[in-house]
Amino acid sequence: MEMIKIAGFGGSLRKESYSRYLLENSVNLMPENSELKILDIKNFPLMNQDEENNYPENVKNFKKQIRESDGVLIVTPEYNYSIPGYLKNVLDVASRPYGDNPFDGKPVAVMSSSIGMLGGSRAQYHLRQVFVFLNMVPVNTPEVFLTFAPQKFDKNGKLTDDMTAKFAAQLLENLVNLARDIKKAHH
Amino acid sequence: MEMIKIAGFGGSLRKESYSRYLLENSVNLMPENSELKILDIKNFPLMNQDEENNYPENVKNFKKQIRESDGVLIVTPEYNYSIPGYLKNVLDVASRPYGDNPFDGKPVAVMSSSIGMLGGSRAQYHLRQVFVFLNMVPVNTPEVFLTFAPQKFDKNGKLTDDMTAKFAAQLLENLVNLARDIKKAHH
Amino acid sequence: MEMIKIAGFGGSLRKESYSRYLLENSVNLMPENSELKILDIKNFPLMNQDEENNYPENVKNFKKQIRESDGVLIVTPEYNYSIPGYLKNVLDVASRPYGDNPFDGKPVAVMSSSIGMLGGSRAQYHLRQVFVFLNMVPVNTPEVFLTFAPQKFDKNGKLTDDMTAKFAAQLLENLVNLARDIKKAHH
Amino acid sequence: MEMIKIAGFGGSLRKESYSRYLLENSVNLMPENSELKILDIKNFPLMNQDEENNYPENVKNFKKQIRESDGVLIVTPEYNYSIPGYLKNVLDVASRPYGDNPFDGKPVAVMSSSIGMLGGSRAQYHLRQVFVFLNMVPVNTPEVFLTFAPQKFDKNGKLTDDMTAKFAAQLLENLVNLARDIKKAHH
Repeated sequence: MEMIKIAGFGGSLRKESYSRYLLENSVNLMPENSELKILDIKNFPLMNQDEENNYPENVKNFKKQIRESDGVLIVTPEYNYSIPGYLKNVLDVASRPYGDNPFDGKPVAVMSSSIGMLGGSRAQYHLRQVFVFLNMVPVNTPEVFLTFAPQKFDKNGKLTDDMTAKFAAQLLENLVNLARDIKKAHH
Repeated sequence: MEMIKIAGFGGSLRKESYSRYLLENSVNLMPENSELKILDIKNFPLMNQDEENNYPENVKNFKKQIRESDGVLIVTPEYNYSIPGYLKNVLDVASRPYGDNPFDGKPVAVMSSSIGMLGGSRAQYHLRQVFVFLNMVPVNTPEVFLTFAPQKFDKNGKLTDDMTAKFAAQLLENLVNLARDIKKAHH
Repeated sequence: MEMIKIAGFGGSLRKESYSRYLLENSVNLMPENSELKILDIKNFPLMNQDEENNYPENVKNFKKQIRESDGVLIVTPEYNYSIPGYLKNVLDVASRPYGDNPFDGKPVAVMSSSIGMLGGSRAQYHLRQVFVFLNMVPVNTPEVFLTFAPQKFDKNGKLTDDMTAKFAAQLLENLVNLARDIKKAHH
Repeated sequence: MEMIKIAGFGGSLRKESYSRYLLENSVNLMPENSELKILDIKNFPLMNQDEENNYPENVKNFKKQIRESDGVLIVTPEYNYSIPGYLKNVLDVASRPYGDNPFDGKPVAVMSSSIGMLGGSRAQYHLRQVFVFLNMVPVNTPEVFLTFAPQKFDKNGKLTDDMTAKFAAQLLENLVNLARDIKKAHH
């Protein structure tokens, strides 16, 4: 079977970010014949249409890696019952200028985390509405909502919750399978 | 009647921003005994919880002005079927750290604009969900969706569409009335 | 203090409905100088604009009781990640014909329940969007999401979970206070 | 090419329903080697879990036709900024009991109509959230929002607006292509 390449990004910008831990742990949860490469989203400029034809190198590089991937994984916290601004800004910047949207047609899966009981679900449903405009193909199940995040990792950021690991691995497998189907259909 | 002070912000970061035009025109659409002061949202840092106790001066100043206001007006474009990242980031940064949310209890009204036919409505409904967590009191009607924005302003950014002006003025009046009621109830 | 009258409805139509249990338990969680009256929503006709001027007695009676109330409580399960159809139909039928919407201006609080971990939260956010059009004034906090419902009631449908009871009582108190403020402002 | 069978339903229950007109006009907008069959949704019982193993014949027949279809078209008005209750009830009833969901894995497209300027878009985004739970595969583009509905049909309910017809035909073609891809992948 052909290798499937997934581009992953997200996490909050703080040092001890549970959603970034979840993203990093996902590297080891990928199914056979697939790989997850984590993209850097630090230092993105704020979206400004006057500048959208002159993006800096890191944005160009990010877009290139999304374009070369077979699918996308986003791992996010929830801020104020929606998508974090810095993460939404990554999507806003990288999807422009008009006609140069590297997310177009890509399969996508989302995981979220929170310190509370809803696990970032509200951010996920707002992201799903964004995917309609970006023309992405989201995986439906399983939805991975990591709740009570501080209890689910050891001090080195290793995921210690078996249930979360199992659901995350299943989501990643479904993403890879969808990516493989779509890749095949285009050839 | 006591003067009601509304703090307004939004607009995109580009030079010719229709939503900023709409925000600026709103200054002249305010009812008697009220004023709209436009706050600067440029150069906000990206939300990072590690830094949230050390915000720069402009963020502190923004929060102070929100706190001193009787109500809030947000004017926004729509990016990718949701709230623009830079604007969501303003809300994320200014509402932190926990326990220091200047939006708490404030009445709020929203206007949006787009070059297309839906007028930014999708961004407005996502904002309304954010207001639940921020514990704001949103005005319900009229909803101001400025559609086909390039046709609604002259070359100096002056609003030339009477219908939009009428609805915007009504929304601002409703916001000021709500702010006055809430101010009275707290005294 | 003047008595505040809240009209409550919801629950699923099955015999052992956790959300109806929660609604019924709310009667005993009301603050002083307030009462919760539970309205019957069975046997509502399906919304049909051709019939909206000829509603049956039970609909007329429901609308009358909403109109005479000082505020509204809705307790709902979640079906298919949204508002249950039968409950949305109650809102659709009772809010028509145009110009005869008894929910107009009423304060409203929502509770939801589910057998799973998200507690019906997705239904609540869709309801909040509906409230914009109905022009209701929703209470923001606390949000009551009753999770893992089968563990929270005894065999007689009595709420046995102290945490849920505490949050529900707080929400009802906030609803009553909001209703009192609004009633006062209109006099 | 193999014939692709689409099952369509929706429309309001009134006699002169613009969304039902749009559904009926869609029959003639289907691409070659496909057909749209309109399903009857009148007289569905209200969802009641106690009855979900004893659905009447019309529900069983509806579910059978969904199951035999290669894809689904829903055409809907918007009530109170969300999915009409009677339509949500069709989805609630037909997707139960647990494990017997005929929508599972089906491609789906949505059109909506309104007498106003937003064309039912709010109902569409709520429907898209429902599709996540139903595990359907929604078509992203083009989104068909029929605005100012009374101007778009002649007195016999024939669609007279070329732009709407063009977008609707494109959506139907995309739905049929997606359905064909999915059918092929399963064989």
